[in-house]
Amino acid sequence: MQQKSPFTEHLRSSECRARLGEVRTAHGTFQTPIFMPVGTQATVKALTPENLKACGAQIILGNTYHLYIRPGHELINQFGGLHQFMNWDRPILTDSGGFQIFSLKDLAKITEEGASFQSHLDGSKLFLSPEDAIDVQQALGSDIMMCLDTCIPFEADKKQTVESTGLTTRWAARCRNAHTNRSQLLFGIVQGGMYPELRKQSADSLIEIGFDGYAIGGLSVGEPPPKMYEMTELTVPFLPEDYPVYLMGVGTPQDLVEGVWRGVDMFDCVMPTRNARNGTLFTSKGKVVIKNSRYRADHLPIDKACNCYTCRNYSRAYLRHLFVSREILAYQLNTIHNIHFYLDLMAQMRQAIKADCLKAWRQDFYGRLNGE
Amino acid sequence: MQQKSPFTEHLRSSECRARLGEVRTAHGTFQTPIFMPVGTQATVKALTPENLKACGAQIILGNTYHLYIRPGHELINQFGGLHQFMNWDRPILTDSGGFQIFSLKDLAKITEEGASFQSHLDGSKLFLSPEDAIDVQQALGSDIMMCLDTCIPFEADKKQTVESTGLTTRWAARCRNAHTNRSQLLFGIVQGGMYPELRKQSADSLIEIGFDGYAIGGLSVGEPPPKMYEMTELTVPFLPEDYPVYLMGVGTPQDLVEGVWRGVDMFDCVMPTRNARNGTLFTSKGKVVIKNSRYRADHLPIDKACNCYTCRNYSRAYLRHLFVSREILAYQLNTIHNIHFYLDLMAQMRQAIKADCLKAWRQDFYGRLNGE
Repeated sequence: MQQKSPFTEHLRSSECRARLGEVRTAHGTFQTPIFMPVGTQATVKALTPENLKACGAQIILGNTYHLYIRPGHELINQFGGLHQFMNWDRPILTDSGGFQIFSLKDLAKITEEGASFQSHLDGSKLFLSPEDAIDVQQALGSDIMMCLDTCIPFEADKKQTVESTGLTTRWAARCRNAHTNRSQLLFGIVQGGMYPELRKQSADSLIEIGFDGYAIGGLSVGEPPPKMYEMTELTVPFLPEDYPVYLMGVGTPQDLVEGVWRGVDMFDCVMPTRNARNGTLFTSKGKVVIKNSRYRADHLPIDKACNCYTCRNYSRAYLRHLFVSREILAYQLNTIHNIHFYLDLMAQMRQAIKADCLKAWRQDFYGRLNGE
Repeated sequence: MQQKSPFTEHLRSSECRARLGEVRTAHGTFQTPIFMPVGTQATVKALTPENLKACGAQIILGNTYHLYIRPGHELINQFGGLHQFMNWDRPILTDSGGFQIFSLKDLAKITEEGASFQSHLDGSKLFLSPEDAIDVQQALGSDIMMCLDTCIPFEADKKQTVESTGLTTRWAARCRNAHTNRSQLLFGIVQGGMYPELRKQSADSLIEIGFDGYAIGGLSVGEPPPKMYEMTELTVPFLPEDYPVYLMGVGTPQDLVEGVWRGVDMFDCVMPTRNARNGTLFTSKGKVVIKNSRYRADHLPIDKACNCYTCRNYSRAYLRHLFVSREILAYQLNTIHNIHFYLDLMAQMRQAIKADCLKAWRQDFYGRLNGE
């Protein structure tokens, strides 16, 4: 059963598969291509909702696994859902918990019925079926829910990949059946490892079930970037053009550029927030490791080309001082910059697609990065 | 040599020594009685300057000892001073480092010439004379500088107190002589331990030297609150009425009320910021320890009577979730509340003095606190 698509394509590049569009949700519409800052525990680490909006955030991501464990989806539901609980009134996408359970490795066991795993907080034994994953996300009230999927390492052989992908498909059908609140969208996740024919099979099965959007999962699991670009490039054409395409857990600024080029509409990654807290700041000319002593007396902002709150008001010397002093303000100011950088990169690409000059923009992007 | 006072008294309570006034500085005028949030390392921990202004902060405090050690006053001076370095355009008071050196205990040695001490960061040997303390504060460019003083524990005997207070007076004269930038104000610090006659001697000597304001030092060093109130009550009348009076390092909300009642114009303390980071939140009805499981599903704000950003937007349940999850946002939201609480308390007292009803207000304050 195909749903009416929440996606409208406005423009398509004449140079590549990149496209400009929008996705409609219960909490408003967001422009694509888009990057979604990650708010694991009902907060994008170190930022207020106002900080996020000032950075240009249109949609954020929440982690079902973490919220299920703490504070619990029933509690959040008592507060009217995740939006009200965390004071964020724009769209939220929740992942299914599949990738986090995969990351638990030996602490998780996958069966036909679902995933048994131990809490990373207290070791308590928990179980999540595909139906549970939807129940939890319906309790959270996210705008876009993800099917519970199974993920395999880059090194998985074909037999393992066939089994895992088949299970993901059967779970996707169960998720679709469990989905009762139609004001929430539900996306299917294409698996298939590094096998093109399994990617095609996975996509076909999901399309037959029918979802509001399609994600490419199982990438950014250790494969080299060219392999990731190759798998993205061959998978996107398997998906219906009138639905949004989401590349999960990706990635570096370069990965976003290459993903957009290949037709991806949505991205998420902890990289900008995590790197900010480690003092690694993104700029149009590459990374700035702010603790480096070369910045001790540096009057310049992180990036002269950046218009974020941090770059408008603070020098590298001050940011270095805060970081080496382990001041909480360091994490806020660094995160504001990195999130702004990622969101501005996407805005630049949307602009370039609109002007149909993404090829030239991409050449400039690599030129700046390589100091040309 | 008496300076022209930066203080104007507007109104005096008919019920007690409390008074309404203002202090003029190079970065603008602030209303008294006032509380100054502490910004130890060129940042009020967890807050941006915009957060501080939204909380109503008119003046903040910087720590000479910490900034001298890291990043260094010469570096800050290269950036045009502490205001520009940290992006704060309202008044700043810097302490002299005396109290921090006192806190180093065995790592510090006081001689006639100055204080030898070891850095708490790397153990390196450092020396600060009264002249150095002024040089450092002039390089920082604060609006109000403090003389380098010597501090003694509550238990000090009379001989020790006489010696220490005498040295503080001689150092105050040297600070006055070293003070060359007259756009910066300089306050003297009354010592004298728990001995009324030594407090009087100390005050008289400082008045003879002549300062832009007078601080009461050496309290909040372990004495019980009634003793602190007693020493404040007897010291304030030793000071000239037309100059601002600053009670250093004080205190709890009750301490502020009792200080204002006894004629104090200015206060500073790490209590609201430090307690916020420990999850202890001030309210009109007492403290809320936010990690307590009783707040797990509590829909109420920290304090229904509070109008701060945190109370307007977040439940106790959400704040508890952030705190037990050790999210950085917890420290921001908690600090915003506690600083707003302290600054609002002062604003309420200014209002009560203006309406000449401080006695009734104080009775209400204790009534609310005791749940009456």
